[in-house]
Amino acid sequence: MAENKIPYKIYLDESEIPTQWYNVRADMKNKPAPLLNPATLKPMTHADLAPVFCDELIDQELNDTDAYIDIPEEIQNFYKMYRPSPLVRAYFLEKALGTPAKIYYKFEGNNTSGSHKLNSAIAQAYYAKKQGLKGVTTETGAGQWGTALSMACSYFDLDCKVFMVKVSYEQKPFRREVMRTYGASVTPSPSTTTEIGKKILEAHPGTTGSLGCAISEAVEVATHTDGYRYVLGSVLNQVLLHQSVIGLEAKAALEKYNVKPDIIIGCAGGGSNLGGLISPFMGEKLRGENDYKFIAVEPASCPSFTRGKFAYDFCDTGKVCPLAKMYTLGSNFIPSANHAGGLRYHGMSPILSQLYHDGLMEARSVEQTAVFEAATQFARVEGILPAPESSHAIRVAIDEALKCKETGEEKTIVFGLTGTGYFDMVAYEKFNDGVMSDYIPTDEELEQSFAGLPKVDL
Amino acid sequence: MAENKIPYKIYLDESEIPTQWYNVRADMKNKPAPLLNPATLKPMTHADLAPVFCDELIDQELNDTDAYIDIPEEIQNFYKMYRPSPLVRAYFLEKALGTPAKIYYKFEGNNTSGSHKLNSAIAQAYYAKKQGLKGVTTETGAGQWGTALSMACSYFDLDCKVFMVKVSYEQKPFRREVMRTYGASVTPSPSTTTEIGKKILEAHPGTTGSLGCAISEAVEVATHTDGYRYVLGSVLNQVLLHQSVIGLEAKAALEKYNVKPDIIIGCAGGGSNLGGLISPFMGEKLRGENDYKFIAVEPASCPSFTRGKFAYDFCDTGKVCPLAKMYTLGSNFIPSANHAGGLRYHGMSPILSQLYHDGLMEARSVEQTAVFEAATQFARVEGILPAPESSHAIRVAIDEALKCKETGEEKTIVFGLTGTGYFDMVAYEKFNDGVMSDYIPTDEELEQSFAGLPKVDL
Repeated sequence: MAENKIPYKIYLDESEIPTQWYNVRADMKNKPAPLLNPATLKPMTHADLAPVFCDELIDQELNDTDAYIDIPEEIQNFYKMYRPSPLVRAYFLEKALGTPAKIYYKFEGNNTSGSHKLNSAIAQAYYAKKQGLKGVTTETGAGQWGTALSMACSYFDLDCKVFMVKVSYEQKPFRREVMRTYGASVTPSPSTTTEIGKKILEAHPGTTGSLGCAISEAVEVATHTDGYRYVLGSVLNQVLLHQSVIGLEAKAALEKYNVKPDIIIGCAGGGSNLGGLISPFMGEKLRGENDYKFIAVEPASCPSFTRGKFAYDFCDTGKVCPLAKMYTLGSNFIPSANHAGGLRYHGMSPILSQLYHDGLMEARSVEQTAVFEAATQFARVEGILPAPESSHAIRVAIDEALKCKETGEEKTIVFGLTGTGYFDMVAYEKFNDGVMSDYIPTDEELEQSFAGLPKVDL
Repeated sequence: MAENKIPYKIYLDESEIPTQWYNVRADMKNKPAPLLNPATLKPMTHADLAPVFCDELIDQELNDTDAYIDIPEEIQNFYKMYRPSPLVRAYFLEKALGTPAKIYYKFEGNNTSGSHKLNSAIAQAYYAKKQGLKGVTTETGAGQWGTALSMACSYFDLDCKVFMVKVSYEQKPFRREVMRTYGASVTPSPSTTTEIGKKILEAHPGTTGSLGCAISEAVEVATHTDGYRYVLGSVLNQVLLHQSVIGLEAKAALEKYNVKPDIIIGCAGGGSNLGGLISPFMGEKLRGENDYKFIAVEPASCPSFTRGKFAYDFCDTGKVCPLAKMYTLGSNFIPSANHAGGLRYHGMSPILSQLYHDGLMEARSVEQTAVFEAATQFARVEGILPAPESSHAIRVAIDEALKCKETGEEKTIVFGLTGTGYFDMVAYEKFNDGVMSDYIPTDEELEQSFAGLPKVDL
């Protein structure tokens, strides 16, 4: 089909929603390093993980050989509620930039959780229900994951306990109300409801919280409450597996119009959206079938890829979770309080970490005022007010498109628009008032944080 | 096609976005009564309206003969940003209710303005730009119209001054930030920036504002500022004309699957969404081609159809606007402060008023706690957190579906889901906390308000 026939929004048919997730680990020569038991420093077994995670999710976590895993019918049904998501040709943005580049974005924000997080939330809730559990616990940073999980748990009639990073809890009271509307309970973290929360509060009375703290609290409650398990919205292999629906749909939509992307861009906090978006394309690259340039975009205030170490680290502040080998800033790292939105996790998906380490993808860090400039420009021309997280990808997509304008190259750029910013208006207000600031951690601060890395010799 | 093949979401192709609006007045035997000049009590001419409205919009306002009016290409292009909107088969809701009824909803919330209002905003901004104006003024209640107009003005590089009903301004600070992100200025109404605002504040110092006040202020600024005109998000004939895209798309989507609705339901404040949704179906009814049952749903706290008078009334509190013949509670009517969300206008679209008066449609009023019960139920099973306004339609759609459950009838119900409730979490919080209350105006209160109706003998 001629390229000028490409519509503004490419919707797949409902029958084209993927029926299998793609597991990129199957095609990786260098597999991501295994999770380690913090006590023995040996790889975590299924039995080690069983008190924390649901059984079938552990299978998925440890499975690095099967390339495709069936999506259960109940999850496929739920996906029909909000999927397929549109792949949008950014004609308006291209015109505003005057670029010869062709820009597409996969938009995951057209659901009430406001982001891609629902893709994994419904899967994790399903397996929890199937196992006969009463409920699950989790943490949430910007609130997108907590909202998604609340929706998923409500659907399967599961109890849902959310620990929300305190700074987000305070900046986003309305996020809490959405979660409550879906029947979840929401506690600001660190809290006095857990032993670990109390300890953290004693050591750092003024802390605004971090994902690392909230994870520790959620895991403590899950492992101390009968019929509960802990679920996580990013970082883990299982989450990237579920999020592969994003990339599978995007690839199918592009192939309908014979479009092959040159550059694929995604924001990266824990890596779930980026990993999901690039997985099937990365598979082709790993199998030598096609080449693509992948760019992970992270905040300059929380630069795990670009300034972190590739090392085993604790996944949480309380050090109750397994150790993961990943790009990390150290589990004590907390982004400065002026950092808006999510993407504030100290570590990074072990899958993406390995791929980055092996030179299969690039990473870039951007400052938040530049991110909000891109967000505002995008909102005005494309008519979608983006989440701060997603706007990191927009920033670099615009930068790459402007490079094409200079060189005259007609590159095809695809980026992940993970969600909407309707609950981020405090950050937009700061930007609109001209009082948003940037902060980049100093080398000394990072060194101090790296000093807390565990000593692991394998 | 067999009915069980109907997908969850019916998307038209981009090429199926309507290229003409449908003007239901052309098929009405009893035309809506003309707007009257408040000084002469004679029908407003084009010249009378020119200081207030854009020229081409006046043509549309006065045109009750042409059944179809071309949508300019620039507006068609903008529509591609967020249209066609999905017609959703509410399989999840049907299952939860256990009803044999088949429920569909036309969802207009998948755009950053969060509602259908963008359909008319972009048209009005286009004609203002075409006329070479510098900017427009308007009022907004719940904030959806103001947001939509901000987006539209940003697209055409027009200045946008929004007067926002004070109670909404205070309940929804984030709405203001979205409008500012799109470059609009937002003033809480009544304000001291206009003569009329000052007068109203003197007479009612503690007022939380009303659409009627905000309209007066916006009109004053438009008529006193060079290169500005006033635009309105509902009530007017031109707005219903633009909103006919909703009904045209819904009808085309249903016809693809040979579905004929029995009942069509919409919430009604000023009538723009309901009028737009039902227009092409009403056309068939007026021409004797098909019959449908139409139900307008309004808040019991602001019951223009069900308890109002069909009479000429002022459109605004300051009495600067033309008189319209409509169902009205009197221009001094202000809903009680506990009323959440929009649907708070004292009057109703003259087109819908005439149709209702002629027995061509029904109306029902519902109390807000029952509305939020329906909203929460809907959010949990359909995965969309609805706007309070839209939830009025959900309430009656559920009621009708439950009647079918009793009788065993397999009726087909279509309702308008006009928008999302992401900026209405203060109201949801009240409901979640169990402190939301209902208020129904007493007959005495209404009589007092009716006493302010102008005496017009024609």
